[in-house]
Amino acid sequence: MSEVVAERTQVAILGAGPAGLLLSHLLHQEGIDSVVVEARDQEYVQARVRAGVVEHGAADILRDAGVGEGLDRDGIPHEGIELRFDGESHRIPMSDLTGRHITVYGQQKVVRDLTERRLADGGKIRFACGPAQIHDVDGDEPSVTYTVDGRRHRIVADFVAGCDGAHGSGRTALGATPVEKVYPFAWLGILARAAPRIEELVYANHERGFALYSMRSAEVSRLYLQVPASDRLEDWPDERIWSELAVRFSLGGEPWEPTRGEIFERSIAPLHSYVGEPLQRGRLFLAGDAAHIVPPTGAKGMNLAIRDVSILAPALAAQLRHGYEHDLRSYSARTLDHVWRVEYFSWWMTTMLHRFGEDAFNRRVQIAQLRSVVGSRAHSTALAEAYVG
Amino acid sequence: MSEVVAERTQVAILGAGPAGLLLSHLLHQEGIDSVVVEARDQEYVQARVRAGVVEHGAADILRDAGVGEGLDRDGIPHEGIELRFDGESHRIPMSDLTGRHITVYGQQKVVRDLTERRLADGGKIRFACGPAQIHDVDGDEPSVTYTVDGRRHRIVADFVAGCDGAHGSGRTALGATPVEKVYPFAWLGILARAAPRIEELVYANHERGFALYSMRSAEVSRLYLQVPASDRLEDWPDERIWSELAVRFSLGGEPWEPTRGEIFERSIAPLHSYVGEPLQRGRLFLAGDAAHIVPPTGAKGMNLAIRDVSILAPALAAQLRHGYEHDLRSYSARTLDHVWRVEYFSWWMTTMLHRFGEDAFNRRVQIAQLRSVVGSRAHSTALAEAYVG
Repeated sequence: MSEVVAERTQVAILGAGPAGLLLSHLLHQEGIDSVVVEARDQEYVQARVRAGVVEHGAADILRDAGVGEGLDRDGIPHEGIELRFDGESHRIPMSDLTGRHITVYGQQKVVRDLTERRLADGGKIRFACGPAQIHDVDGDEPSVTYTVDGRRHRIVADFVAGCDGAHGSGRTALGATPVEKVYPFAWLGILARAAPRIEELVYANHERGFALYSMRSAEVSRLYLQVPASDRLEDWPDERIWSELAVRFSLGGEPWEPTRGEIFERSIAPLHSYVGEPLQRGRLFLAGDAAHIVPPTGAKGMNLAIRDVSILAPALAAQLRHGYEHDLRSYSARTLDHVWRVEYFSWWMTTMLHRFGEDAFNRRVQIAQLRSVVGSRAHSTALAEAYVG
Repeated sequence: MSEVVAERTQVAILGAGPAGLLLSHLLHQEGIDSVVVEARDQEYVQARVRAGVVEHGAADILRDAGVGEGLDRDGIPHEGIELRFDGESHRIPMSDLTGRHITVYGQQKVVRDLTERRLADGGKIRFACGPAQIHDVDGDEPSVTYTVDGRRHRIVADFVAGCDGAHGSGRTALGATPVEKVYPFAWLGILARAAPRIEELVYANHERGFALYSMRSAEVSRLYLQVPASDRLEDWPDERIWSELAVRFSLGGEPWEPTRGEIFERSIAPLHSYVGEPLQRGRLFLAGDAAHIVPPTGAKGMNLAIRDVSILAPALAAQLRHGYEHDLRSYSARTLDHVWRVEYFSWWMTTMLHRFGEDAFNRRVQIAQLRSVVGSRAHSTALAEAYVG
């Protein structure tokens, strides 16, 4: 197999998710050329269901980058969340406490907006490349190769950005030291064609396990159940999902029924926390899920990705345009400081809200902690600050 | 062995610690007669070293009961605490954040004040009774018996209060369901004749383990080190204690030496959390360590005891004077609500500050959490509120 296609760019970006696309866009605004290499085809990338909450700071980054139009038009601002436990409901009025809010806007919409904008700006996104390989990151001329229809492609770059998720080539090529935690449970998530019974997110700590109510639009609800990590989708027929949700959202000892509707997407995903340190090796930099994973309880995955590249893009531009190295050299340390705060927050929300086996002490402490959070303005504010970002 | 001494009282109280003595005093103020039965002699009880921090609310209870004179005269108000980690020092200005403060005043001084006051008021405290037995708590005429010099004593009462600690008869007689957690480490605590180098408490999270600096007076320092639960005092000669403290209190990579002085008291105590539920069986009620144990990290043990009996005393008086049962029936539930919040706080401080094995993720999350606590006014305030009580 001969190498038939070669090109040169300043930054080769692996992955056309929020991190890779926003990085490419931000670099373009700085006058830096990049090529995005995506393993999957465009349809798949834009259809895959991921996060749905854009935090305040991430929304500002998208707006400042001129790609917040869809978010501001179609996003649904949320000014509070509900914590439900012991059959009681308690609202955390996030906007009152912090002056900031979150916006419900699906990750696939962010991906669609960014893709359209990049293509309109003449951006280079190579879809359906299959697995890519990264070469020579320790030298001066790193490159990325992939093979399509028997043709081998090589992109030679000044820098490579691994924005290709937890299972991509970026993480492998960097070879960071993993620091991680695996939680002993998973989330069963569904999308249902059902008007949300309640518009704000409901985080429920029930003795049978955690549940989360959220909406994606006026017609679509997104619901989650904590399930054993060994469960499979066939263990959860529709009726069992709906009745279990009703029990876990109980109020005053009575089941609380979500509005039902056709379940058109469902998945079971394990929960874990992961940070690979550092985020740099030579001319390779990681951002987003390639660099770190948070359990979804804090709704931070996409937000961290957006923040990562908002730091990485100007640092790459300063180096490429002015030969100014400092920001790029400090990218890993500066980014990790924030990443670890978010890892802490995501771990906190996860441990406070899920059932961990039969440990009675842990269960009582969870409820006491929740009572402290809802009973103290300071404690509510601490949670709200971290949540709205 | 014949029963030679019998007496009758309204409330038989086991234990002459803070809980038992304050309960007896508060009952006396309500016109209720009680007898305190203490296993140890007076000298032992007043000499034993225990907690040293009186929270704001507990100080108010002592003052309102007319036994706050010593506290106000000799107690040392503290308006902040220091958190030390990653070689940095961060002060939590508790009084600025909450308008409240703690007072350093040794538990043995509280015990001395209460003992003197009870004896001055003609209160009945039977010291050196050895182990007591509790009888007939499910009937209308419970009693307490003990044997001194071969003579069996019986105190018949309307109610029995078990204020006799974790290993007393109260807990055994009640037979509550324990909810507990054992931590995989202990505290080595010393008292040293050394002027404190710093007046406020210093909570240090160091990679070698937790350490705590506190003062008892201008001449006496109280210091603690996290040690393996299997360690014995002979593993810790004086020099090792002082040099380990200096390392754990390091600032900016340099050891920070506490003022040294003669170590005149030392002990190793395991850390655990325990709540026995409920706090009532028939005519027996528990308060203080008999009812619950907290790890000392939050400095809450004595404060919980004081709060328990501030609820129990008026409830017993309402029953005995007016036949009003409600407050006594709800004592367990009302007290446990607060107890669990304090159990949560003590668990939180313990898990945030101690080293738990080699878990790298946990260590990074601890540091990120500490950064969040010191970096957010709301988070600092949440900690301060719980700490000052």
